[in-house]
Amino acid sequence: MGYPVSSEQKMSERIIYLNGDYLAESEAKLPVLDRGLLFADAVYEGFGLLDGQIVDFIYHMQRLERSLDELSIPMTFSVDQMFNALMRLIEKNKVQSGFLYLHVTRGAGDRAFHYHDQYVPNIFAFTQGEKFAADDVPPTIELLTYPDLRWARRDIKSTNLLAQVMAKQAANQSGAYEALMFDSNGLVTEAGSSSFFFIKNNALYVRPVSQEILHGITRQTMLRVAKDRGITLIERTYSLDEVLAADEALITSSSNYVLPVVKIDETVIGDGKAGTFTLALREGYLAKARSEFYSSKAL
Amino acid sequence: MGYPVSSEQKMSERIIYLNGDYLAESEAKLPVLDRGLLFADAVYEGFGLLDGQIVDFIYHMQRLERSLDELSIPMTFSVDQMFNALMRLIEKNKVQSGFLYLHVTRGAGDRAFHYHDQYVPNIFAFTQGEKFAADDVPPTIELLTYPDLRWARRDIKSTNLLAQVMAKQAANQSGAYEALMFDSNGLVTEAGSSSFFFIKNNALYVRPVSQEILHGITRQTMLRVAKDRGITLIERTYSLDEVLAADEALITSSSNYVLPVVKIDETVIGDGKAGTFTLALREGYLAKARSEFYSSKAL
Repeated sequence: MGYPVSSEQKMSERIIYLNGDYLAESEAKLPVLDRGLLFADAVYEGFGLLDGQIVDFIYHMQRLERSLDELSIPMTFSVDQMFNALMRLIEKNKVQSGFLYLHVTRGAGDRAFHYHDQYVPNIFAFTQGEKFAADDVPPTIELLTYPDLRWARRDIKSTNLLAQVMAKQAANQSGAYEALMFDSNGLVTEAGSSSFFFIKNNALYVRPVSQEILHGITRQTMLRVAKDRGITLIERTYSLDEVLAADEALITSSSNYVLPVVKIDETVIGDGKAGTFTLALREGYLAKARSEFYSSKAL
Repeated sequence: MGYPVSSEQKMSERIIYLNGDYLAESEAKLPVLDRGLLFADAVYEGFGLLDGQIVDFIYHMQRLERSLDELSIPMTFSVDQMFNALMRLIEKNKVQSGFLYLHVTRGAGDRAFHYHDQYVPNIFAFTQGEKFAADDVPPTIELLTYPDLRWARRDIKSTNLLAQVMAKQAANQSGAYEALMFDSNGLVTEAGSSSFFFIKNNALYVRPVSQEILHGITRQTMLRVAKDRGITLIERTYSLDEVLAADEALITSSSNYVLPVVKIDETVIGDGKAGTFTLALREGYLAKARSEFYSSKAL
């Protein structure tokens, strides 16, 4: 045939977890008939790694269990089994800080949209290096506003992510770090792969959870930090215009924790520097995360 | 670890096309870091197979090229190269009639939502057997109405299909063959993985193409048949209530061609039998498809 295609790109060989095995990256493969490929019939979690430990582990596992349940994909492992498997993966890759990804598909079989209970989930996990040191002064970032093109069940953390790919690609091409998505009413939903917050008159504004946004785990832990510190929380929907008039803006995600937003499209937010609330929330988040590392009872 | 999981189910071993190779099904695998798995960053086409030939081949390839272009995934093959590769796959599997599936992912690499131009697409194709013989009297089918939960770019034939999986699963569980999806205004969009039409007072009603529905290839060819036969075509949006009062209803898809719909939820359509317009359109579609089989100039 002579097509100019190959099955994979050259990549450094990390160790990948696949269905109980630890494989070289080039050996970690799934059948092309896996429903994750055919239908995006799969869910995932992304975790931060800090001091060789998994950040917010139990909360991510609770969300994973919920995502699986919403799609009637069986959870074929216990939380402690998965914790031990992931810790072994982290050790094999000698990662102290960075990112950990866990993916569960419904399984492989003849192509048909509807499913049955004979599929066997395929499960894989891998690590990636950190973007910058967690305890360093964080970079300030810019956002590009972009229409929210996603489906109606954004609360399920599935791999149906093409709308986010398009939003974050547009951001990247414009020189922004992240996209800030808005719905057809001009209300902000969230960032491309992060939760979004802003500060106005010493209050922290955040959109309430619903089927319209992902229930961010870093979001949830940071809200506990804000509560501990007595910061006024205003949970409601808001317009882009309100955001552009904010004193501070920030995003949270498992790969970045808390990052200050200093510009949205052409509008500078506040004084254009990382805000004091934002930096305090980041420091508070990292301290909270470190105080809550999971310990498996089965270890 | 001892998880009760395995990487695939036992399936009959067909031959699968993967990046220029013809592999046993159990050998046809993609890296877990493929963006098709991580982000549903992939497009596909499904073709009917009739008399050992590919139905509506050139129209499907035009749509595939458009889907790839919308996502800036490079098309790394010519139409004739792909035709020859697919015909060889059909011959290797000794399929005379049935279904052919072709899938193109952006490629594999470290996980990041945004992409660059260094990814190398992964391309695979497989065949499946027919559900019933094309020239037999077709089965009549029932539909279940279901909310359309899909994203905003339904015109791109991507693998972001979980909304359709949920709709068709609900249909299947209720004993219906297909889902009929409706938007938040009560307007019908289309069926779960089929285009939808109805007949009222001798006119054929169909929703116009837009970003809100897939540009069905079988739909398009059948509309040419309807035009050839002088059937009045009314192209506009319509409500569920209008559909339930129809004289006939039908769906089209590459795996079923044209099928008569005789019941939607609890409402019998027309006299509850396959309609005369519907059966004539099916027969006309099969004749048109057979008259337009593609011949590669490069063969």
